[in-house]
Amino acid sequence: MPDSYRRIVLASRPRGAVTPDNFRLETVATPVLQDGELLVRNHYLSLDPYMRGRMSAARSYAASQALDQTMIGGTVGEVVASRHAGFAVGDAVVGVLGWTELAVTDGAQLRKVDADKLPLSAYLGAVGMPGMAAWYGLNRIIKPRAGETIVVSAASGAVGSVVGQLARLQGCRVVGIAGGPAKCRYVIDELGFDACIDYKGGKLEADLAAATSDGVNGIFENVGGVMLDAALARTSAFGRVALCGLIGGFGGADMALHNARLLLINRLTVQGFIVTEHMELWDQGLTELAELVASGQVKYRETVTQGIAAAPEAFIGLLQGFNFGKQLVKLI
Amino acid sequence: MPDSYRRIVLASRPRGAVTPDNFRLETVATPVLQDGELLVRNHYLSLDPYMRGRMSAARSYAASQALDQTMIGGTVGEVVASRHAGFAVGDAVVGVLGWTELAVTDGAQLRKVDADKLPLSAYLGAVGMPGMAAWYGLNRIIKPRAGETIVVSAASGAVGSVVGQLARLQGCRVVGIAGGPAKCRYVIDELGFDACIDYKGGKLEADLAAATSDGVNGIFENVGGVMLDAALARTSAFGRVALCGLIGGFGGADMALHNARLLLINRLTVQGFIVTEHMELWDQGLTELAELVASGQVKYRETVTQGIAAAPEAFIGLLQGFNFGKQLVKLI
Repeated sequence: MPDSYRRIVLASRPRGAVTPDNFRLETVATPVLQDGELLVRNHYLSLDPYMRGRMSAARSYAASQALDQTMIGGTVGEVVASRHAGFAVGDAVVGVLGWTELAVTDGAQLRKVDADKLPLSAYLGAVGMPGMAAWYGLNRIIKPRAGETIVVSAASGAVGSVVGQLARLQGCRVVGIAGGPAKCRYVIDELGFDACIDYKGGKLEADLAAATSDGVNGIFENVGGVMLDAALARTSAFGRVALCGLIGGFGGADMALHNARLLLINRLTVQGFIVTEHMELWDQGLTELAELVASGQVKYRETVTQGIAAAPEAFIGLLQGFNFGKQLVKLI
Repeated sequence: MPDSYRRIVLASRPRGAVTPDNFRLETVATPVLQDGELLVRNHYLSLDPYMRGRMSAARSYAASQALDQTMIGGTVGEVVASRHAGFAVGDAVVGVLGWTELAVTDGAQLRKVDADKLPLSAYLGAVGMPGMAAWYGLNRIIKPRAGETIVVSAASGAVGSVVGQLARLQGCRVVGIAGGPAKCRYVIDELGFDACIDYKGGKLEADLAAATSDGVNGIFENVGGVMLDAALARTSAFGRVALCGLIGGFGGADMALHNARLLLINRLTVQGFIVTEHMELWDQGLTELAELVASGQVKYRETVTQGIAAAPEAFIGLLQGFNFGKQLVKLI
């Protein structure tokens, strides 16, 4: 057992873009366990766009990340010491233990996972929160029917990649939006999307129109702004829009919806959601996703950054789309 | 039986604001009835914001109004001649016979109404299409619970006035938005809304915030643009937005939704609808509305313009909010 470990705290709130000095790396003493507690060594930390929202003091759906406290973050690791009846040393556990190498917890929010069935990191991606976000938004909001066309932004990312593959399995035509030719090739060749538009190509609207000549019945939105406007412009009557993320606005970009008229003209339904508010569905969804990943029907890709000290830089890159697939930090 | 009658046709499509020369008054010969046809003398023509959309050639949910054809419009009148087994002379009928004093029809879209129970004009307002739009958007999209706060724009209008009264009957707190002190007084004193914001007062956002200190759970939107943004800014988690009309955009105003981020942050559901696509509910809805109007629990107000020649001017005034309550044209 190490007598100290490293963690990253929020040092200051960003003004506009996130910068490295918004974070501070600290070395702290490993605490002594009390009855009912366990110690987890995190193997992987998940970096996700929602963290950007927490860094601000602005009104949002969740409390702000407190200054000088460990940054919030999903983790997967193993129990290395336990004074808790429900957990034994060696258990693999997923939780929200934060940007930290070690964590003491009472186990309340931990979930045991099967380290033999899937690589541990999968439980932070396609079989974790991002996968569940895809599952919920697609199945509970878009509710696709075979033959419908679904548009997915951030298509090569942790959420978008699962959305598209699940929709394909349900018989939909799936058009992704991603940044750059490499991501678009991956989305089509590896993930099996029917088409993928490179938004960096400079003619998003025209390219998306050409790829959706029969209209769009469902939009799974991870970005917002111009991406959502371009997809709205292609909607058919009674289209559904699952609003999962609006990462596009964090850099201060114009996030106004200029095609709002189409919400009425095409009688669309738009629903914003936070997947952690629907925990009653996680058992069902994660069981389905685990089977699909284990059988190779849902593929995923990861960008793994080594070491907790590199987490801030990796997070800043994530907000700019530098990652390719699920962004993780390997902590051991 | 007169041997001729007057009607108004679409002479040209508006460029920006509607002008009188977009319309043309014509006198035409009364046709001879064929078997299966009937002749209706319209008593009232309904003027409604949706007509503005039909006047454009732009893509919308309905086909454009054809040039040189009778303008579309809801009507109530009486059968004055019939060679149709289902209709007798003297029957009171509601239909969509257009901006015309007389009309020959096969009766397919006509509905007989009870001229003794309610004034005929009510079947074009609170007990007609506007009332059904209120009923559907409130009960099927917003689904209010007692104690919730509902915001209604165009609150003194044919739709908004019914929305607010129905929501009050369901135990909601209702805040209207209307143009000018007279309309706001009417909305509070006569219709019984809890509050009404005069958007012409110059501080819509601050006034609405003061009137909705507990947040907003439902928005019934008839206008869009700044009104919708102001209401979105006040939403609580899981708020619902029924999008019935976006009349604000027809003058070329900026209709972008600047508070789109709140759709995600507050996990809102926004649904656009066209009430004529839900005809299966009209029997139920109109029966309820007829009882509420007959018993005085739902009140309404009308602006009645005399004579078909005055219809274009009345319609232009409607688009600018000059009417007070349901805008009608009396044709006899």
